[in-house]
Amino acid sequence: MDPIRVIEVKRSVYESNDREAEKLRASLKERGIFLLNLMSSPGSGKTTTLKQTIARLKDKWKIGVMEADIDSDVDARAIAETGVKSIQLHTGGMCHLDAGMTEQGLKELLTAADGGSEAIDLAILENVGNLVCPAEFDTGATKNAMILSVPEGHDKPLKYPLMFSVCDLVLVNKIDVMPYFDFDMEQCRKNILLRNPKATIIPICAKTGEGVDEFADWLSDRIREQKQ
Amino acid sequence: MDPIRVIEVKRSVYESNDREAEKLRASLKERGIFLLNLMSSPGSGKTTTLKQTIARLKDKWKIGVMEADIDSDVDARAIAETGVKSIQLHTGGMCHLDAGMTEQGLKELLTAADGGSEAIDLAILENVGNLVCPAEFDTGATKNAMILSVPEGHDKPLKYPLMFSVCDLVLVNKIDVMPYFDFDMEQCRKNILLRNPKATIIPICAKTGEGVDEFADWLSDRIREQKQ
Repeated sequence: MDPIRVIEVKRSVYESNDREAEKLRASLKERGIFLLNLMSSPGSGKTTTLKQTIARLKDKWKIGVMEADIDSDVDARAIAETGVKSIQLHTGGMCHLDAGMTEQGLKELLTAADGGSEAIDLAILENVGNLVCPAEFDTGATKNAMILSVPEGHDKPLKYPLMFSVCDLVLVNKIDVMPYFDFDMEQCRKNILLRNPKATIIPICAKTGEGVDEFADWLSDRIREQKQ
Repeated sequence: MDPIRVIEVKRSVYESNDREAEKLRASLKERGIFLLNLMSSPGSGKTTTLKQTIARLKDKWKIGVMEADIDSDVDARAIAETGVKSIQLHTGGMCHLDAGMTEQGLKELLTAADGGSEAIDLAILENVGNLVCPAEFDTGATKNAMILSVPEGHDKPLKYPLMFSVCDLVLVNKIDVMPYFDFDMEQCRKNILLRNPKATIIPICAKTGEGVDEFADWLSDRIREQKQ
């Protein structure tokens, strides 16, 4: 396997992150690239979910993944094994990504992808594992998604309101271990919809693949929309 | 139950957080108050662990708990039910606590405690659920501890190095569900000790109480040291 490309991303120089994010989102639409910003707590299963999803979509769409990791390249290596383009955004201790950092990463990802800048349909940003700071910074992604895992508890939307309110999609992961935890899926749905009544909620188990088809279909629909 | 006292803590006005933290630590030593800064990911079981621990220690030591929560009072209410003094530090979206904020909270906690400022042996700060930012700010606590839960995975010390390197104690929680996860306790120990060779590691299950006695003993030893 090729060595993982590591990009040191720096805090944006732009005065207004929001303005920069809107610019990036418009430019992605123009180029027909769908960018998903995937967020979650540490250890909720972002990388495993992505591996399962990529396996279902990689013959259909050209995919590139940006792995934001504070220090290690564990996740970027795992994604590279799926055969899609993967780069590591080294945040150097930073707890989130902003639009400028995302843009730097995307540029590198498009350069890394065969065929140049038109070669990607689906770009995925795996954000830093953190339910607080990443919610505060618009990355310029087309859509925001997050993973809440069963062991974390169904009360998380009450405790991390902003994260749930900025996400268009919530994947509820690790449903295979539901019998071993005090987790109420109906209460979880209610808590999520309290923060964002329009949120799409998909229960999944990344380990067994349950529910991942539905997530893959959701992505394909969004990619098609982005190209209209 | 009395209404939960809510303190709006503001970012420190002090130029040097480190200097302020050292000052607070020295003042705690002088007053014989042991302050534990407890950190973890969202949903790893901080509040449940504290409830179990308080039940074992509350007849032995005078205890006060500061619950740092972005928005909700779920945890502060749960702690108040144990009968010890509990206040909520409302961080207003902030992703961590610094020494100045901790000092504001502690002052309120000591005022709230019966008998005034000498009335607490063990103060516990339940930090914001986040493995990134809280590690970067010295709160002035006597010791730092963190909870890593089994579902998060044994690779977390590789991905969040600073958090593990600043913690004197790591509680590995939810060991009851170990059979359902790809979690290797030996590898976990190795990964933690790689970041901090002096770390004390205690496997626990806050739900059943397994291992909590050992944590309670560790706390009692530290409280006694603090009073010498």
